[in-house]
Amino acid sequence: MLLHLCTWTEVESYLQGSQGIIIPIGSTEQHGPTGVLGTDAICAEKIAIGVGDIVHALVAPTINVGMALHHGAFPGTISLRPSTLMQLIHDYVISLAKTGFRSFFFINGHGGNMATLKACFAEIYHDLEQQPLPSPDLIRCELANWFMCRSVYTEANRLYGYSEGRHATPSEIAVTQHYFAEAVKKYPLLEPAARGYSIYSAKHFRQCYPDGRMGSNPALATPEAGKTLAELAIKELSERYEKFLNQSEMP
Amino acid sequence: MLLHLCTWTEVESYLQGSQGIIIPIGSTEQHGPTGVLGTDAICAEKIAIGVGDIVHALVAPTINVGMALHHGAFPGTISLRPSTLMQLIHDYVISLAKTGFRSFFFINGHGGNMATLKACFAEIYHDLEQQPLPSPDLIRCELANWFMCRSVYTEANRLYGYSEGRHATPSEIAVTQHYFAEAVKKYPLLEPAARGYSIYSAKHFRQCYPDGRMGSNPALATPEAGKTLAELAIKELSERYEKFLNQSEMP
Amino acid sequence: MLLHLCTWTEVESYLQGSQGIIIPIGSTEQHGPTGVLGTDAICAEKIAIGVGDIVHALVAPTINVGMALHHGAFPGTISLRPSTLMQLIHDYVISLAKTGFRSFFFINGHGGNMATLKACFAEIYHDLEQQPLPSPDLIRCELANWFMCRSVYTEANRLYGYSEGRHATPSEIAVTQHYFAEAVKKYPLLEPAARGYSIYSAKHFRQCYPDGRMGSNPALATPEAGKTLAELAIKELSERYEKFLNQSEMP
Amino acid sequence: MLLHLCTWTEVESYLQGSQGIIIPIGSTEQHGPTGVLGTDAICAEKIAIGVGDIVHALVAPTINVGMALHHGAFPGTISLRPSTLMQLIHDYVISLAKTGFRSFFFINGHGGNMATLKACFAEIYHDLEQQPLPSPDLIRCELANWFMCRSVYTEANRLYGYSEGRHATPSEIAVTQHYFAEAVKKYPLLEPAARGYSIYSAKHFRQCYPDGRMGSNPALATPEAGKTLAELAIKELSERYEKFLNQSEMP
Amino acid sequence: MLLHLCTWTEVESYLQGSQGIIIPIGSTEQHGPTGVLGTDAICAEKIAIGVGDIVHALVAPTINVGMALHHGAFPGTISLRPSTLMQLIHDYVISLAKTGFRSFFFINGHGGNMATLKACFAEIYHDLEQQPLPSPDLIRCELANWFMCRSVYTEANRLYGYSEGRHATPSEIAVTQHYFAEAVKKYPLLEPAARGYSIYSAKHFRQCYPDGRMGSNPALATPEAGKTLAELAIKELSERYEKFLNQSEMP
Amino acid sequence: MLLHLCTWTEVESYLQGSQGIIIPIGSTEQHGPTGVLGTDAICAEKIAIGVGDIVHALVAPTINVGMALHHGAFPGTISLRPSTLMQLIHDYVISLAKTGFRSFFFINGHGGNMATLKACFAEIYHDLEQQPLPSPDLIRCELANWFMCRSVYTEANRLYGYSEGRHATPSEIAVTQHYFAEAVKKYPLLEPAARGYSIYSAKHFRQCYPDGRMGSNPALATPEAGKTLAELAIKELSERYEKFLNQSEMP
Repeated sequence: MLLHLCTWTEVESYLQGSQGIIIPIGSTEQHGPTGVLGTDAICAEKIAIGVGDIVHALVAPTINVGMALHHGAFPGTISLRPSTLMQLIHDYVISLAKTGFRSFFFINGHGGNMATLKACFAEIYHDLEQQPLPSPDLIRCELANWFMCRSVYTEANRLYGYSEGRHATPSEIAVTQHYFAEAVKKYPLLEPAARGYSIYSAKHFRQCYPDGRMGSNPALATPEAGKTLAELAIKELSERYEKFLNQSEMP
Repeated sequence: MLLHLCTWTEVESYLQGSQGIIIPIGSTEQHGPTGVLGTDAICAEKIAIGVGDIVHALVAPTINVGMALHHGAFPGTISLRPSTLMQLIHDYVISLAKTGFRSFFFINGHGGNMATLKACFAEIYHDLEQQPLPSPDLIRCELANWFMCRSVYTEANRLYGYSEGRHATPSEIAVTQHYFAEAVKKYPLLEPAARGYSIYSAKHFRQCYPDGRMGSNPALATPEAGKTLAELAIKELSERYEKFLNQSEMP
Repeated sequence: MLLHLCTWTEVESYLQGSQGIIIPIGSTEQHGPTGVLGTDAICAEKIAIGVGDIVHALVAPTINVGMALHHGAFPGTISLRPSTLMQLIHDYVISLAKTGFRSFFFINGHGGNMATLKACFAEIYHDLEQQPLPSPDLIRCELANWFMCRSVYTEANRLYGYSEGRHATPSEIAVTQHYFAEAVKKYPLLEPAARGYSIYSAKHFRQCYPDGRMGSNPALATPEAGKTLAELAIKELSERYEKFLNQSEMP
Repeated sequence: MLLHLCTWTEVESYLQGSQGIIIPIGSTEQHGPTGVLGTDAICAEKIAIGVGDIVHALVAPTINVGMALHHGAFPGTISLRPSTLMQLIHDYVISLAKTGFRSFFFINGHGGNMATLKACFAEIYHDLEQQPLPSPDLIRCELANWFMCRSVYTEANRLYGYSEGRHATPSEIAVTQHYFAEAVKKYPLLEPAARGYSIYSAKHFRQCYPDGRMGSNPALATPEAGKTLAELAIKELSERYEKFLNQSEMP
Repeated sequence: MLLHLCTWTEVESYLQGSQGIIIPIGSTEQHGPTGVLGTDAICAEKIAIGVGDIVHALVAPTINVGMALHHGAFPGTISLRPSTLMQLIHDYVISLAKTGFRSFFFINGHGGNMATLKACFAEIYHDLEQQPLPSPDLIRCELANWFMCRSVYTEANRLYGYSEGRHATPSEIAVTQHYFAEAVKKYPLLEPAARGYSIYSAKHFRQCYPDGRMGSNPALATPEAGKTLAELAIKELSERYEKFLNQSEMP
Repeated sequence: MLLHLCTWTEVESYLQGSQGIIIPIGSTEQHGPTGVLGTDAICAEKIAIGVGDIVHALVAPTINVGMALHHGAFPGTISLRPSTLMQLIHDYVISLAKTGFRSFFFINGHGGNMATLKACFAEIYHDLEQQPLPSPDLIRCELANWFMCRSVYTEANRLYGYSEGRHATPSEIAVTQHYFAEAVKKYPLLEPAARGYSIYSAKHFRQCYPDGRMGSNPALATPEAGKTLAELAIKELSERYEKFLNQSEMP
């Protein structure tokens, strides 16, 4: 169920049975010469919809711009500052909590969002104490990175090994190809990707990784692999969502 | 062209020919008992894509949550505080300006976003002076509300007159029905909608407008009318985009 | 009654009978070669005092600096950033609400304040829920622009038509002349004012409108016309204040 | 010269000869049962105008609401939070610095503003380094409290001694009476004022000082004494302004 | 008792008997050619520990970086902006108040912190009203500057007179020498220190005071004098702490 | 070399040879019934001093309060909100960068700081572009968690295995015991620690982990083990610091 295709009365009914919601969050950032800018948002959204179907949970509109400041020297990247993203997440959670949601399951498609989300969750629990809510301490947020699912990770390693790299990976690009034919780009990849530099400023990032790839070979991506990877993620995250909801009843 | 389905190298090429970009912005908020929560985001996104096709402009990912605090007492509404939305818009513009974009054309689907966007644009021009950009005063933002297009307004009035109302209008709901079959909800509408109250707090809003409609009769919406209205908006906003871009060359 | 000439005990007594207050808000910004920098603040203040006399309402000290960033390239302009103005308005309302005021009627003299005020009101209603107030949802803010009163607008159009323009209008300058002899400046106006440019950065504004006027001919202003316009505004806003206060009792 | 009664072209001329400006800042807060809420703003404004006349300096519009949170339990008090006041002062200084002002002389009428103003000045000097100004380190702010002038202090002590107290002093109320006949309130003062409590929360303040006076006997105030005190302040601050401006040329 | 060497259960027991805590706050900033950067933090910490021993109060970890922006042009200075320091103090007080502390006694070693701390306390009292605490108005903060103790001031004047100066004083450096042998630096001091300039920007400060001293002769500092001064401060502040705690019971 | 025991001239000399600095960061939070509140700050500080001695690097004053909101229901815990900690780190880095430091090596003693620090570093690189620094993109921050050193982790596992747990671990408590005799607390530990709950609000944390331990048995801690663990961390982090500094010369 997509929240944006429901009426408020349908949501009101839903809340009688569940107070959980899935919020996909991605990024709009360079993904190397062959990956689309929306890679992380697409992966998060499609996998979230898959999970929502299985667990019968509402899926909120995708947060399609996240924390990607380090990719900012590549055209087309859009990034929130961490402090802005924290405000945004705060507002999503407070808004929804006010009408009865309690369990927020963020399906995340971008490694760069993780630190900000974790910092933000801590601040939200603190801020909630000042909100006029019946039981602020029952509000709970969970960060679920699809690309860190054990099953996904294992399969990606089996498929690509060393060529998976750290950014613009064949795995994530494969998933976009499974969902969007336009995401299959033709591009002659001649050089092996740069590898091993630490991440500091946007300018420095582009100096180190001139085409945006971090040790990956996205030419290995196929829509078929993308289908497999997405299905693995959907299955594993569905189980995790159920567990999260059950756990939220305690202690 | 959808930004999120382009690679950064494609965007780099695009910037050789144009520094303009279309950013759809909507809202996720109650739209009465028959309108979907994503109405404003859907309208903005679909019309933006239509305009982008005609004027060959890049379309950024949709900002699908906006300023809807006054709808906050209805389940499913998600809202940013105005101060958060200002930070978000700031970050979008600064991010894109850093790699060469100059003309930001916001296609907006929600009246409640207008004040915040205008306030934000003023603050952005001020902040830009501190940014390390070659010509900060060439950065320009434009607010284009599809529902305020003269052609749209005239047609909506012709079709619905008094029943158009101010929120959860048959016009906007018709547009969602044109694009999404799921948006055609069955609902027995018996009572005429409330009308004429000013907008203050979320709680007050719901007291005044108990089902969310403000003077509208969304039962009159049809996918056919939605098609007409969307086409009118696309045509008129395409002309306005061209004019905005030409004007941005001056003085 | 001017708040700043009352004692706190007088205000305490006043609150027994009414919880309404008028807050004038203007701007300190260039008003073309003949208009004084305080034009918007003067108009708002004097009209507010007139309204206060008729409706027996307290008038708070004038907020004489508002959102005028776009006029910032002209010497003497002082502007708050929108985010600062939002904090300021927030603090005025919260301060007064804590001791019993409920209905805040802002008489505004500057178009550039409107967006920020509207955005701010929405954020205040949201923030009020966290305040230790008995009935936060009874706090209500109203934006009343004297220059948009129907009677004022009609008279200005009758007097000046096309020469009214959009900024440094003969209407507003006439009102300042009615109240301050020093506001009648001698200045040879030779050239017709620039017209029709959109408003972006402060630097761009001054390039487009080199003497600060936007399509206006302020040489047409007279103290007599100012008297008429002010009286119309005072009458119309007094009625609106009464209506606002009555409405605030509902629903 | 009052800035708000000048045109921008007059300010432009003024800047050829001086880059100094006087900014009066007061407060709107309870001043005991006989003092008007605007006491601090009135004193600051009138004395600033007097200084401006002598030293031929521009006087900006008065900041008539300051930091008075501790008086917040008395009706009619309006206060900015320190963090808001800091943003406001920042914006005044940056706005004026952008068109050529360099020396900001704040004539202050309220002890409660002092800490925030000092903290703010430090932050402004830091922020100025990021502003696109030719010589940010030539921007200088000075805090001049009229009530701490040696001549004023001596005279107040001579006139009132122990009865001067710390708040709602006969001195400041005398100054308001000199300028406004309405500020001469009739009130039977029977009890000696409370004395000696530290200042913590607004609620605590009112518990300690139930009528708002801190050790003062404002019944001793007379318009004549107000005239003397104001003149002393004007003379002493005029000399200080001249010294400040000369000093600002160095090192 | 040092808080950081206690367990939470020991603190829980302590709170049965007292709700007071001592928080040392200093600065990390240049102290002339012979003074160590940590001078203000060292003095505050050591005196706070001395006071804590006498009055049996918990001593929190030292805030060793404060507001020292004006010293920022000298290597090694670290400074918080006033707005950051306000947030930090807010968080300390709120954190401790949530588990039962009520009386916060800040022993301060740096004049530059005073304005920010005072501004911050006012904002904290205001913010506390929104916190879920049983009696927010019983939370009280006190600023105790060791160097402004009457006994310290008198002794410093007796020892150094005119050579005490305003910054990098022999008094404070003597105290550091009493506690740390490493703080006794060998340095040929040939020139008398600069004197009499106002404090504006960091760059201006260094121009006026090229070696960092403000009118002081720190070569006069001795560990013995430091011992005497520290003992005086500890004695006087211990009495003041007791008085503060007793006062906090009222009214 | 401890920064706070250096003069500014000594730092100036140091900067001729190195632009690196070590900043210890810990936390003040409950560490179970036997661990001291300052555990994380003590570990970070002592290990940082050890590293500084080996690599001849300056060590800044310890940030002894970090992000510990989730421990906030236990008396004595002091926590910064993530947003405050971000401002603080920002100010440390900007202050030091202005006088020549470039490489910031944070030795961290608290897992709860990691997300905020990472988010903060990203925001700092972005903010630095607006600072008046010669080469903002040469400023680099590194997060080095002593407890995640491979050698430390291996030894802790060897010593304690399953009893190491996740919070109030015997490892960290052992390190405090090595440095402070007072940190060896006598306490009868009867019950095995709670285990396996996710971390949400402070209230929830205490419900799940009633004595503060997360699966650990801190009774196993010994000063001897603490010595070994500290030495391992110092050795490994010294190598990492050298590598970081060399890397900072590139690319």
